[in-house]
Amino acid sequence: MNGASVAPAGQDWWREPHRCYAGGRLHFGGRDLAEFAAGIETPFFAYSAERVRANLERLIGALARAGMPHRVFYAIKANRFAPLVQRMRSWGLCGIDTCSPAEVLYALEHGFLETDILFTGHAVSNADLDVLAAHPGVHVNCDAISTIRRLGERSPGRDIGIRINPQVGAGYHAGVHYAGAKPSKFGLYPDRFEEALAVAASFGMRVTELHFHFGYGYLTKDLPRLGAALEASSWFMDRCPDLATVDIGGGLGSRITEDREALDLDAWAALIATHLAPRGLKVHLEPGDYLQKDAGALVCEVNTVEEKSGLMIAGVNAGLNLQSLWAYYQTPFIAAPLERREGVSQVYTVTGNINEAIDILAEDACLPPLQEGDLLALMNAGGYGSACASNHCMRGRFGEYLVD
Amino acid sequence: MNGASVAPAGQDWWREPHRCYAGGRLHFGGRDLAEFAAGIETPFFAYSAERVRANLERLIGALARAGMPHRVFYAIKANRFAPLVQRMRSWGLCGIDTCSPAEVLYALEHGFLETDILFTGHAVSNADLDVLAAHPGVHVNCDAISTIRRLGERSPGRDIGIRINPQVGAGYHAGVHYAGAKPSKFGLYPDRFEEALAVAASFGMRVTELHFHFGYGYLTKDLPRLGAALEASSWFMDRCPDLATVDIGGGLGSRITEDREALDLDAWAALIATHLAPRGLKVHLEPGDYLQKDAGALVCEVNTVEEKSGLMIAGVNAGLNLQSLWAYYQTPFIAAPLERREGVSQVYTVTGNINEAIDILAEDACLPPLQEGDLLALMNAGGYGSACASNHCMRGRFGEYLVD
Repeated sequence: MNGASVAPAGQDWWREPHRCYAGGRLHFGGRDLAEFAAGIETPFFAYSAERVRANLERLIGALARAGMPHRVFYAIKANRFAPLVQRMRSWGLCGIDTCSPAEVLYALEHGFLETDILFTGHAVSNADLDVLAAHPGVHVNCDAISTIRRLGERSPGRDIGIRINPQVGAGYHAGVHYAGAKPSKFGLYPDRFEEALAVAASFGMRVTELHFHFGYGYLTKDLPRLGAALEASSWFMDRCPDLATVDIGGGLGSRITEDREALDLDAWAALIATHLAPRGLKVHLEPGDYLQKDAGALVCEVNTVEEKSGLMIAGVNAGLNLQSLWAYYQTPFIAAPLERREGVSQVYTVTGNINEAIDILAEDACLPPLQEGDLLALMNAGGYGSACASNHCMRGRFGEYLVD
Repeated sequence: MNGASVAPAGQDWWREPHRCYAGGRLHFGGRDLAEFAAGIETPFFAYSAERVRANLERLIGALARAGMPHRVFYAIKANRFAPLVQRMRSWGLCGIDTCSPAEVLYALEHGFLETDILFTGHAVSNADLDVLAAHPGVHVNCDAISTIRRLGERSPGRDIGIRINPQVGAGYHAGVHYAGAKPSKFGLYPDRFEEALAVAASFGMRVTELHFHFGYGYLTKDLPRLGAALEASSWFMDRCPDLATVDIGGGLGSRITEDREALDLDAWAALIATHLAPRGLKVHLEPGDYLQKDAGALVCEVNTVEEKSGLMIAGVNAGLNLQSLWAYYQTPFIAAPLERREGVSQVYTVTGNINEAIDILAEDACLPPLQEGDLLALMNAGGYGSACASNHCMRGRFGEYLVD
């Protein structure tokens, strides 16, 4: 099984320092993953904190090279595994972006300061606002005039941000265009922006930040649209005399398939600088999945290998309840056996153990031959996995480990 | 607020004995839901056990009228709220359909006997099979030759079922066609069925049941396709000399929008009888959502009422993490305020508090005027809500109550 089998051309296009084969064995976060998995119950998520750090430093580096003042706030909804959050705290490279009071309290419990925390939520309740009022250092971006008014009643005089909707979006999938042409639930539109400013002023609240979120999974080809969103935002910027920062949210895309190019971060940073630097503004970023996606793998056991109507099925002991991005957003995982067997590669459909037809974890995966009992990694599973896992079909049991 | 406002024509097309307005107040399961909600934290699921029973009795009644021998197994993955499961146990009208060993153990803990339990799973692991082997009275439908072989190694001589794929499906949404023309992960196809029978025979296992699942949400218009699935199944039946039952799964549709007709159960039962009675077979059914959907409502509080770019947004303190059917399968909920306000009705978009663009709970909902602080019921939320809820965005807190 410790084969010297050679991958077909292109099979390892996803190779990175933190994930690659050596001697037919998958190494992840610097560890031989099969050795790591010995004696551990599957399924489990394996995370490489060093890869998260590299992703974060890559962003920061591009902005620094562009001379663009910036601060990164990690969108903790993507992955709140405590050891990982603690590690991120220890680096001191980012704050935390939150969207619920529970996330604010969680960030505080893990050592972040109020001033390290951004909050941007939709459908914010009075109970939510009571928590935010008790933490005056947390920066709140208001998504509605109603939120401004009700926050103002609780925290008059507080500096706030306003979430705007630039009506331009992009990403992996149409469902995740947060700011496309169709009205979305998010943000203020121009028609009521002056009213929003007046409500803020009536509570003595300065608007120091504008926030928008552009999509989920944008790549280099989408940068002109990001430019259009920044351009559309200038109308709002012109109306905010106290503006200090623009928060362009998260949504940066990863290279999830071979035919996509990675996001050109220098072009991205230059684009931001072009729009914001002349105004003397700082940029805030809220990457979540971009930091976590390729730093995580879901390791599972193949329990069924069988041809069904021309498809080679590899059934595994995990399902869409643990990682739903592929089922719901068509952002594919990369399947890779922990130990490559000798033999002719085959095209597999990797299926989960949830009784739903959409519970498919990978399609058209060209892999060395699999046998029942083999362990398989589903890579690009680090974001929106454990953070939104459920006990659907009572198959909710899983582990989580930092491997480096 | 206790208005005598009259609903526009068609607004209450969903009226049933267990859910209707009286004096402008929503009654659910025989209770004034606003009174019930007083002092209870929102969001919460309200369930009417009597409605579940009525749905169950309606199915059973139609089969009895058609003279069709039958047994119903409730698909517990739809809703495993313990008081509801205990109530269902007390009626003695159904067994339990399971798809994981944890569900088997859960059913046993709630008083069902092994002989009351069906198991039909995909990607069944050896650990799963060890649990099934320890409960020899549980009827197992095998979804793959691999499962037959590995169950045979553990439980030789056991009577089993085989899940087949009739390659015909229907339902609310293309993604939930379990047995359509595209190969799915489920069931045996004709090409390997004789091999499956041979493997069963080699372990002395009699094949006493055939199982197929046809879709999710089929209605009267889909009955010809169900007939085609039964017809396609006859090829398999002919090859099983020990066959006693055919399990046609669940997937019966509810009337979720005004323009749909309810499933004609007498036509449905007659169709089943036409195909199975001449062979002297019994039918097994696995309804889940059909029993629970209209027996449950998710009650939440409106915290934000605001026009955004021409849409009237009603933001609430619940989201797709608690009930995802609309976001992922486009099976809409029916929004209804617990207390109808006087005034002109408006068209609302009900939005959830999860930071995802698809977190919309209702669109184009024509409702009496809403104000912040109003309570709203999202009806048809009884299935696949709490059972697959997550803590996404750390918004996972909710209650559950039987109201009758």
